[in-house]
Amino acid sequence: MDLKRDLELMYNYQREIFLLDRIKSLLSWDMETYMPKNAIDFRAEQKAYLSSMIHKKQSSDELFETLERLTSYIDSENLSEDDKINIQKFYKDVSKSRKLPPEFVKELSMVKSMAFAAWQEARDKKDFNVFSPHLKKIVELKRKEAEYIGLPGHPYNGLFDDYEEGMTVEKLKPQFDYLKKEIKSLLDDIKKSDTYKNQEFILMKKDFPADKQILLAKHVMEKIGLGSDFSRMDFSEHPFSSHVGAEDVRITTNIREHPLFAFKSTIHESGHALYESFIPKKYLYTILYDSPSCGLHESQSRFWEIMIASNKDFWEHYFGHFDEYYDLNGKKDLWYKEVNMIEPSLIRIESDEIHYPLHVILRFELELGLIDGTINVDDLPELWNEKMKDLIGVVPDSDKDGILQDSHWGLGYFGYFPTYAIGSIYASQLHKALRKDFPDIDKDIQNGDFSRIREWLKEKIFVYGRTRTAEDIIKNVTGEGLNPKVYVDYLRNKYKEIYDL
Amino acid sequence: MDLKRDLELMYNYQREIFLLDRIKSLLSWDMETYMPKNAIDFRAEQKAYLSSMIHKKQSSDELFETLERLTSYIDSENLSEDDKINIQKFYKDVSKSRKLPPEFVKELSMVKSMAFAAWQEARDKKDFNVFSPHLKKIVELKRKEAEYIGLPGHPYNGLFDDYEEGMTVEKLKPQFDYLKKEIKSLLDDIKKSDTYKNQEFILMKKDFPADKQILLAKHVMEKIGLGSDFSRMDFSEHPFSSHVGAEDVRITTNIREHPLFAFKSTIHESGHALYESFIPKKYLYTILYDSPSCGLHESQSRFWEIMIASNKDFWEHYFGHFDEYYDLNGKKDLWYKEVNMIEPSLIRIESDEIHYPLHVILRFELELGLIDGTINVDDLPELWNEKMKDLIGVVPDSDKDGILQDSHWGLGYFGYFPTYAIGSIYASQLHKALRKDFPDIDKDIQNGDFSRIREWLKEKIFVYGRTRTAEDIIKNVTGEGLNPKVYVDYLRNKYKEIYDL
Repeated sequence: MDLKRDLELMYNYQREIFLLDRIKSLLSWDMETYMPKNAIDFRAEQKAYLSSMIHKKQSSDELFETLERLTSYIDSENLSEDDKINIQKFYKDVSKSRKLPPEFVKELSMVKSMAFAAWQEARDKKDFNVFSPHLKKIVELKRKEAEYIGLPGHPYNGLFDDYEEGMTVEKLKPQFDYLKKEIKSLLDDIKKSDTYKNQEFILMKKDFPADKQILLAKHVMEKIGLGSDFSRMDFSEHPFSSHVGAEDVRITTNIREHPLFAFKSTIHESGHALYESFIPKKYLYTILYDSPSCGLHESQSRFWEIMIASNKDFWEHYFGHFDEYYDLNGKKDLWYKEVNMIEPSLIRIESDEIHYPLHVILRFELELGLIDGTINVDDLPELWNEKMKDLIGVVPDSDKDGILQDSHWGLGYFGYFPTYAIGSIYASQLHKALRKDFPDIDKDIQNGDFSRIREWLKEKIFVYGRTRTAEDIIKNVTGEGLNPKVYVDYLRNKYKEIYDL
Repeated sequence: MDLKRDLELMYNYQREIFLLDRIKSLLSWDMETYMPKNAIDFRAEQKAYLSSMIHKKQSSDELFETLERLTSYIDSENLSEDDKINIQKFYKDVSKSRKLPPEFVKELSMVKSMAFAAWQEARDKKDFNVFSPHLKKIVELKRKEAEYIGLPGHPYNGLFDDYEEGMTVEKLKPQFDYLKKEIKSLLDDIKKSDTYKNQEFILMKKDFPADKQILLAKHVMEKIGLGSDFSRMDFSEHPFSSHVGAEDVRITTNIREHPLFAFKSTIHESGHALYESFIPKKYLYTILYDSPSCGLHESQSRFWEIMIASNKDFWEHYFGHFDEYYDLNGKKDLWYKEVNMIEPSLIRIESDEIHYPLHVILRFELELGLIDGTINVDDLPELWNEKMKDLIGVVPDSDKDGILQDSHWGLGYFGYFPTYAIGSIYASQLHKALRKDFPDIDKDIQNGDFSRIREWLKEKIFVYGRTRTAEDIIKNVTGEGLNPKVYVDYLRNKYKEIYDL
């Protein structure tokens, strides 16, 4: 009964890592929401301590040897299908973990926490120089990490694999180049239209009191399916979603200038949180209680934010609430157009759905250069502005609205950004499949009833946890892998009407 | 250089335990403030996991053997005074820890978390029966714990020592009996007075909007010395203070019927938090970064809440704020009398300072019976009501305002309650010493300037961390140990005037 004992030992490791990992999530959530400012050094140390503890467990010889034995028994009929998948995935994770020296993991965690604080300070002071020494350190460590991991192809692949398993620079770059070309061409068409030339915000310029924005955000969060017994909403500089534990998902939002920012970011984060909430409980405490990739995760947030909530059907229902709260004089059609008004934006998360992938591609290209060493941190602000000019057509007044706008680099997330565009593409593919499965789904949406959609997502996506790759799951639902053409078609079709193209 | 290595190892253990312990504090803080309801089981498991990890470290053979060696070198001149004290205290802690089997520690932590949730539910349902099966389990485990620890005298001593090192039932019981007798006699005198017979709330019956209560609570919190860079205030069912980490103290409050509840509970918890905030940083990461006893800790909260904030001088200053917010028509003298109006209360933390020790003694007597086995959990509600009738003269309508009012038993805190009365007594002794050291301190208080008091407390109390016993610290400031007569004299003197005795 060696097999049984080995399996038990493996699951026990996973359980402990799971518990510690979610404790770390709470520490991070708190750090970004409620923690007093001066506590940062101590919190950084706590997080580094937990990281190194997790890493120590994950890369232990005992575990590795157990996994080697389990891998050799992989065809045993005493193993369930889930066991087999688990063993294979965990063996890969652990092998990867063992490539990183313990001191490296601890140092990276410390550096990240300090960098995050520096990033916040830099934003307050609108000064990239406050952040850049920390970013240099992070880039240096991330290049080292990529080297340790050592995947074939572009060095970035070693980092990218953490977020989008199986995806590579070599595969993605051509897809992004296609997307860039097509979107620029669509934007050219839009910008030539009279509708674009004469467009202006009228309704969006009204007064949108913050308390009402929050009420509506909480309303839609609940409608999407996040009950207060297992989820909550708070505030942070940069909205995020965090899976703090079983029956405990948390999202954050913020009030910004655009009156729909809180509402849309809430829908976005609710998409993430819904996914996390409904991964089958049988996977709890294991590495399968997870999504297979950030791109697939992002497909859920973008699905709700863009495919559902920027849709005409959605506003058939929600406009009523908005009109009641903000006196929009019943101008539903005008509201829908303003919701979908295309305008270059400095800020990625405030961007419309056409410009959005360009913001992502900009970051992806900079990251590639930082990691392969062709770009220096000192040159970043200038490069940022150049690329903004080229891709989006606007340039920020200060670093706060430029290179300092995202928390990712301060958090050490290199390889994360491209998954945002992958998520948007997947979302469009899922939306197409949903409409095919339920040709009458517009009626539900018009009634503000998302229950059939929610169940469909559970059945098509959430149910798998991390047992399959993102691409397999998407193929199973849509019949094909990542296909940016579906996103481009969706955009062309939608904006043809809005801009009378 | 064995000594150096041993010392390093010991401090390293303390550092890890300190980090983990404060992580546990955050988990608890979150559990009582923001955590979604359904997350309780998972959180219970996380806390139990951390508890058992801490216990494992604390009772490890490696550490114990190291401490035995260090103890034998205790006279070495290579050890600083703080090292020596640390070694002795830690040796005692560790020896105690080792008496508890690991499974016991884990089980107790699990049972406590579940019991806390059951206590909350029982309160909502006003039904002790929801809580009693959990309380039985806790009492059973606590009796076992007392047995494991095995101190001389009453079995309760084994639990009591965790909260009030060196104090015993045998020493405290006579002091409490004296206090009970004197307070009952003072209450008799008050109740016979015409002032008492004709007293009624006039100003306190006005409207006190919650938002203004919170503004004033935050105002006084800051005045006491808690800046927002290292402290914060939130809400919970039962107000508490938590030391989440270096530069991170958190208090909670709540709005209740009495218009001063939030204000007074904030002052109380601020007293705790101030103490924690100003223990010298040189003790950080060690067992000396702590107070020596809960009674001394409570002396700080009661000092601010009672000795300062129920004082005439205090209201010379603060009445202005209250008058401005709540339109009290300048009736400062009446306000002062209402602030100090003596009235039997069902709820301990809403009680006046005369009845307060009786609430504590009631719980102390019940705990003694639960732990020595002369009282059964099933009989508690009835016994509670009998004792309330006898000591306070009122009986609750429901268990919510009776036996379910405190979270302590649900949290497994047996031996904690008596420290509340010890704290009140110490507070009166400190207050007497303060007035002696600064005969003109009333001027400061009348101006709402607490800086001299704060510095005095730092110098007399906070500076020692856990290097001395509570009694030593108090003796050093006041010239004597625990002396309930000072509290009785203080009460008699104050209420003679208020009730024209």
